[in-house]
Amino acid sequence: MAERPTLVSLARDLGVSRQTISNALNAPQRVNAVTLERVLKGIEESGYRPHVAGRQLRTRSSHNLAMRLYPSTDGINGSVLDRFLHALTEAAQRRSYRLTLFTAADDAGEIDAIDDLLGTADIDGFVLTSTHHDDARTAWLLEHDVPFVAFGRPWSSAPHEAAHSWVDVDGGAGTAEAAALLLAKGHRHVGFLGWPGGSGVGDDRRDGWRRTLAAAGLDDVAARLHAEVEDSVPQGARGARELFERGATALVCASDSLALGAVTAWRELEPHAVAGPPVIGFDDTPVVSALGLSSVRQPIEQVAQHVVDLLLRQLPNRPDPDRTARHELIPASLVEREPDPHLFEPTD
Amino acid sequence: MAERPTLVSLARDLGVSRQTISNALNAPQRVNAVTLERVLKGIEESGYRPHVAGRQLRTRSSHNLAMRLYPSTDGINGSVLDRFLHALTEAAQRRSYRLTLFTAADDAGEIDAIDDLLGTADIDGFVLTSTHHDDARTAWLLEHDVPFVAFGRPWSSAPHEAAHSWVDVDGGAGTAEAAALLLAKGHRHVGFLGWPGGSGVGDDRRDGWRRTLAAAGLDDVAARLHAEVEDSVPQGARGARELFERGATALVCASDSLALGAVTAWRELEPHAVAGPPVIGFDDTPVVSALGLSSVRQPIEQVAQHVVDLLLRQLPNRPDPDRTARHELIPASLVEREPDPHLFEPTD
Repeated sequence: MAERPTLVSLARDLGVSRQTISNALNAPQRVNAVTLERVLKGIEESGYRPHVAGRQLRTRSSHNLAMRLYPSTDGINGSVLDRFLHALTEAAQRRSYRLTLFTAADDAGEIDAIDDLLGTADIDGFVLTSTHHDDARTAWLLEHDVPFVAFGRPWSSAPHEAAHSWVDVDGGAGTAEAAALLLAKGHRHVGFLGWPGGSGVGDDRRDGWRRTLAAAGLDDVAARLHAEVEDSVPQGARGARELFERGATALVCASDSLALGAVTAWRELEPHAVAGPPVIGFDDTPVVSALGLSSVRQPIEQVAQHVVDLLLRQLPNRPDPDRTARHELIPASLVEREPDPHLFEPTD
Repeated sequence: MAERPTLVSLARDLGVSRQTISNALNAPQRVNAVTLERVLKGIEESGYRPHVAGRQLRTRSSHNLAMRLYPSTDGINGSVLDRFLHALTEAAQRRSYRLTLFTAADDAGEIDAIDDLLGTADIDGFVLTSTHHDDARTAWLLEHDVPFVAFGRPWSSAPHEAAHSWVDVDGGAGTAEAAALLLAKGHRHVGFLGWPGGSGVGDDRRDGWRRTLAAAGLDDVAARLHAEVEDSVPQGARGARELFERGATALVCASDSLALGAVTAWRELEPHAVAGPPVIGFDDTPVVSALGLSSVRQPIEQVAQHVVDLLLRQLPNRPDPDRTARHELIPASLVEREPDPHLFEPTD
């Protein structure tokens, strides 16, 4: 325990309840004048720092932000949202804000939950994740003038979508860098293993790879060597097998799940290869890190910091609230690794 | 969006603010009588279901629980706490409770944060994780009569520790089962790769392995074939190398990080082995699942459900609050897998 007095020790020393101390700071009209004077004097003499309590008094803010928690996934691709949750909780706490979680089955359920929270809980603002084409959530929040920031840019050109603040990672820059690394290693037939078209995030990652190939005069490769599969290890293996059969010698993948599948496909075809698998994943998850695969990493701590900054500046308790929509697009970076020889290299 | 009216649509239709509707439900004395009657009539006619709002009125509860969020780890061993966070948020929401997160540097910081939250936020109860020997947090919470439940049993015999509710997983039963599987596969020299002695969780996992060996008349193996290292992949490789050199042919590990290290050590020594690595991990994390390793799995969803049950029954807003300390010890289960041949099997 720290040496400074706590709310509890102070209540004991002053012979009053915690609620009385809290009221003295936050709702002084509820405390009788004699007690109020004694308690405020006691607070001052004790050196007790009421932290958030004092700030709440000045600003009439709950100091609570809220975010929907998505269900656990296979632990590979979902892990980036868990990293974000940790980073966001920490970034919020540095500004004396807490994070409240809720779950929802879909976007409509998320809107219902936000509506409920606005009526029943003290929430200053909301954080959205996993934005997508035609996102009903952003339209609703704007319409109801609710402070929020999205992790994820708007993926459609509806006019309202430029009207809110967002922070996102430039995934296409990451896959462009990944493709460039494979070209620099001597590959020319660098394929792309991604998701079915139409998802903003997936299309962006594919476009980055394509830009690098086009700049290298390899438009024909880019036109031919891409495959689209659902996001799972077995589907990744299937898609990679097809691309290797069509002549790909290296692959940039839209996710680490796909990359893991691609590695198993590559080992089937090249059991005696000396080098590690020419496969680059996306999200630098613990699985690929443990295996020593290269992957594109999102700077999630930086994203969380910006999200909190852009959300707090909107809040009515600021001295000069600023509701201007602001957008931050942060570069992804390639993490290059050598595979662990005992997991991937041939043994003979 | 669902068809039922929302707080926002209702406010628009009735021409009042959201706050007025909330007050009508939760603090009717703040609304003038004519408006109150009109709003309550409008609520009834609209079919609006105020969910939590109504319940708060009846029970005077904030419907907020709080838990400390630990920092991200390497993504292997920390992932069990992320699974718990998801399961807890979902279990709480099924009972109309939300979960608020905070961070802290250590136990003293956690106590400070709880103290702060008691003074400044509406929190009905707390969830502790990662209990350990001489846990100052449980003593403090009991002393201050704060409703809480621990995920993790008390690891010391201090009298106050029997006095609070907890839910835990019987990890020793899991490692006992893991050792039995390796014996059933024909191994006799089944070693244990664990952490330095003194951690309740680690000692419990070691004891389970030891019980199985003792029951099989292998006390000499149990006395000889165990190693204690820090919890990381490289340290796991080092410890496993030592155990294999001392004659172990199979290993039960206290964590998946250690198991992953053990696999790399085993591949060095047995590059031409036909079967998969005779190594069993603990926590069934995404990494070992992707690699096809066997591991002991904690039934985290069940833990979360029990934690919420045991916490809510204590709350003063219950019809018949029950502060009796209750304890639930839930068995762990072994997940047996065949390794992916292209990640682990020899290629010649």
